[in-house]
Amino acid sequence: MSIKYAKRMEYIKGSAIRELLKLTEQPEIISFAGGLPAPELFPIEEMKEVCLKVLDTDGKAALQYSTTEGYLPLRKIISERMRYSGIEIPADDILITSGSQQGLEFSGKVFLDEGDTVICESPSYLGALNAFKSYLPRFVEVEMDNEGMKMDELEKALEANPNAKFIYTIPDFQNPSGITMSFERRKRLVELSVKYNVPIVEDNPYGDLRFEGERIPAVKHFDTAGMVIYLGTFSKTFSPGLRVGWVAASPEIVRKYVLVKQGADLQCNSMAQRETAAFVQMFDIDKHINKIIEVYGRRRTLMIETMEKEFPKNVKFTYPSGGLFTWVELPEGVDAAAVLKKALEEKVAFVPGGSFYPNGGNENHFRLNYSCMPEDKIVEGITRLGKVLKTL
Amino acid sequence: MSIKYAKRMEYIKGSAIRELLKLTEQPEIISFAGGLPAPELFPIEEMKEVCLKVLDTDGKAALQYSTTEGYLPLRKIISERMRYSGIEIPADDILITSGSQQGLEFSGKVFLDEGDTVICESPSYLGALNAFKSYLPRFVEVEMDNEGMKMDELEKALEANPNAKFIYTIPDFQNPSGITMSFERRKRLVELSVKYNVPIVEDNPYGDLRFEGERIPAVKHFDTAGMVIYLGTFSKTFSPGLRVGWVAASPEIVRKYVLVKQGADLQCNSMAQRETAAFVQMFDIDKHINKIIEVYGRRRTLMIETMEKEFPKNVKFTYPSGGLFTWVELPEGVDAAAVLKKALEEKVAFVPGGSFYPNGGNENHFRLNYSCMPEDKIVEGITRLGKVLKTL
Repeated sequence: MSIKYAKRMEYIKGSAIRELLKLTEQPEIISFAGGLPAPELFPIEEMKEVCLKVLDTDGKAALQYSTTEGYLPLRKIISERMRYSGIEIPADDILITSGSQQGLEFSGKVFLDEGDTVICESPSYLGALNAFKSYLPRFVEVEMDNEGMKMDELEKALEANPNAKFIYTIPDFQNPSGITMSFERRKRLVELSVKYNVPIVEDNPYGDLRFEGERIPAVKHFDTAGMVIYLGTFSKTFSPGLRVGWVAASPEIVRKYVLVKQGADLQCNSMAQRETAAFVQMFDIDKHINKIIEVYGRRRTLMIETMEKEFPKNVKFTYPSGGLFTWVELPEGVDAAAVLKKALEEKVAFVPGGSFYPNGGNENHFRLNYSCMPEDKIVEGITRLGKVLKTL
Repeated sequence: MSIKYAKRMEYIKGSAIRELLKLTEQPEIISFAGGLPAPELFPIEEMKEVCLKVLDTDGKAALQYSTTEGYLPLRKIISERMRYSGIEIPADDILITSGSQQGLEFSGKVFLDEGDTVICESPSYLGALNAFKSYLPRFVEVEMDNEGMKMDELEKALEANPNAKFIYTIPDFQNPSGITMSFERRKRLVELSVKYNVPIVEDNPYGDLRFEGERIPAVKHFDTAGMVIYLGTFSKTFSPGLRVGWVAASPEIVRKYVLVKQGADLQCNSMAQRETAAFVQMFDIDKHINKIIEVYGRRRTLMIETMEKEFPKNVKFTYPSGGLFTWVELPEGVDAAAVLKKALEEKVAFVPGGSFYPNGGNENHFRLNYSCMPEDKIVEGITRLGKVLKTL
C-alpha cells in the first residue's frame, strides 16, 4: 500500500542540481553557486545590543503571539524606506512575511488555479518558479535584452494568454541574469498590466545594492491603479537568517495575503520583527548597506575583470551594476551541467542555467555569485573555471 | 475591472467572530477568548543570556541562510524530547516549521486535492480547519466522548469516504474541547489508519502541559507502519513569538514536507532555532514547564470551581486535565454568538463554538481559555458570565 499525496506533489521535486550542489558545501570548494550574503559583514555586535534592548523594553510582546499583519513600527519603517524607490504606501498596506520567498508562495496561492498562466522573464528566479509550480500553472517566458523584458513580446504574451494571472518580474539586478529593467520599460509594464488587467508581482530583493549609476524608481512607483504587488526583504541588507520580508500592495490585495498568511503560519517571529526595527532605529542601516555595496561592488568588478582575462572569447556574460549575480552564456550546444561536473573536479562550483527556464532549454547558461567569496578566491576560482572552459 | 484571484480565495475569508474578537483587545475586557500562553512566565532574563551566547558562539550562522530541514542540534533535542511521549524518531526525520500551524498548512498542501476528504474530530481546531480549507476539501466530523473520537464512528467514516486523505486529531487536551484520547482509542486509531491506508495528522501542542494523571503515549507511539505525522511546537512550553515547531514523520513523508517548506519560505529563522536549542541546553526547560503547569493548573481549577458555583445547572462543561481550554455546552437552541454580544456588554469575552465545526451547526457551544488571565480576573469574569447565562 502506498500513501496517496496531492497531485501537486508530482511537480514538487528535489532537483538533480540541488543534489550536485551539496558537493559545494565542502570547504575546499570555491563556490559561486549560492546566493548568500557575505557573513563577515553581518552586524553581530550590533545584534547583541539589539537583542538586549528588545528584551529589556518589550520582552513579553517579543516572545508572545502577535497580529498576522506584523509589528506596526517595523511596517512604518518599511513604509518610510520604500520612498527611496519612489513608492508611497501606508504601513497599513504592508504585511510582514517570512522572507520574500513567502511572498512568492502567497502570490501563487492568492492568484493561481491549475492551468492558469504566469508570465515571467526568461530566465527567472528558480525559487519563485518552484513556489508557483506547486499551484500547477503554465509559464509563458518573455525574452529580455539589456533593458529587461521586451515589452512587445510581453504584449504578445498578454494577448495570447487571457488566463494570465500575474506578470512576475525582478526589475533590479535580476536573479539570475543581473539585468536591470529600464525606466521606460517599467512605465510601459504598468501600462500593459492595466490594459490587460493582469497584476504584476514585483520582486525586489536587490534594489538597495546598486554599485553605480542612479536608482531607477520601482515598478510600483508607476502604479496608480493598484496593480503592482511589491515584495521586499531585509535578507540582503541586514540578515537572511531572521526571515523578515514584506508584501506591499493595494488594501484589497494585501488583505488576501493577510488571510493566506493567517492559515499558513499565523504570523512572523515577533522577536525578529522587533530586532529588525530596533536595528534600523539604533544603528545607521544605510551606512551598513553602503559597506555591503562597497565589498560586493569590488567583488563584482574583480570577477568580471578576471572573466574577461581568463574566459574564452566565445563565452559571454552580463555586467551587473548591482546585486549578487552575473550570467554566463556558453556557445550554443554546450551543456553547463556537464561543465559543472568538470568544474567540480577543479573544486569550483556554479549553478547551471537550465532550471531558470521554466519551460526548459537554454542549457548553455550558468549563474555566478560574487557576494560570498573573498577576492583571492574569486580570482583563483574564475581562473580555474577559465581553464575548464578552454578545454571545451 | 476587477482582479481575478484563485478559486480558493472564495473560501479563505475573515471570520465575523474575528471581527467581534477585536473588541477583546481592549484592556478593560476580561478575555477568555484567545489561546495565549501567560506572558508573565516567559523566560525573558534567560533569553538575554541565550541571545548573547548564540551571537557570541555562532553569530554568523545565526544570521545566515541555512538548510530547509532546520538546525541539526535542535532537531536532536526534539528527537530526545519526543521519547517522553513514547516516540523513537531520529533527528533526520524531523523538519523544523514555523510553529505547528505551518505543519497543518503543509499537511493540506502535501495531501489534499480539491474535493478530497479530511476526517476530523467534532469539534476541532479552527486554525487547522482554515489551513485545510484553502485546499478545498470536504470535512467529515467524528463525534467525541470523554475518551476522544469514537472509533466505531471513525470506522464508518473511513468506510464511507474512500477519498479520505488523512485523519486529523489533537489527542491531548484537545482544542477546543479539552478532551484527551484514551490509550485504547489511540491504539485503535492507528489500526484503523493502517487498515484503510489513511495517514493520521497528530497535532500535539499541549501534551507537555498535563496537570494531573499519567501521560498517555502519543498516537505516533503506536505507529509501526509510518502512518502518523506528528506536529509539535515550542509555542506553549517556551515562546510562541519565536515560531518554532516541527513535523516528525517517516522519511518518505517528511521529505514531502521538506520540499513544500523549500518553496514556502526556504527555512525557519536561523537565530530562533539556535535560541530554542540554547535555551534547552543552558536552562532546565522541564523545570520551566513545571512552573507553567502549576500556574495553568491552578487557573483551570479556579475556573472550573467558579463555573460550578456561578453557571446555571443546565450549562455543561468539560474538565480538562491539561492544556489551555474548557468547552461549554449551552442548552440546545441557545446561540453562543448572541451570548457573546451580551457578555461583551459585561466586558467578558470568549470564542463561540460554531466555527469549530467545519460543517456548521452546534452554535450552542463556546470555548474558554484559562491560561492567560490572572486568578482574580478568572473569578470576576466567570462570575459576570454566570450572570449573563442566568438571564437566558
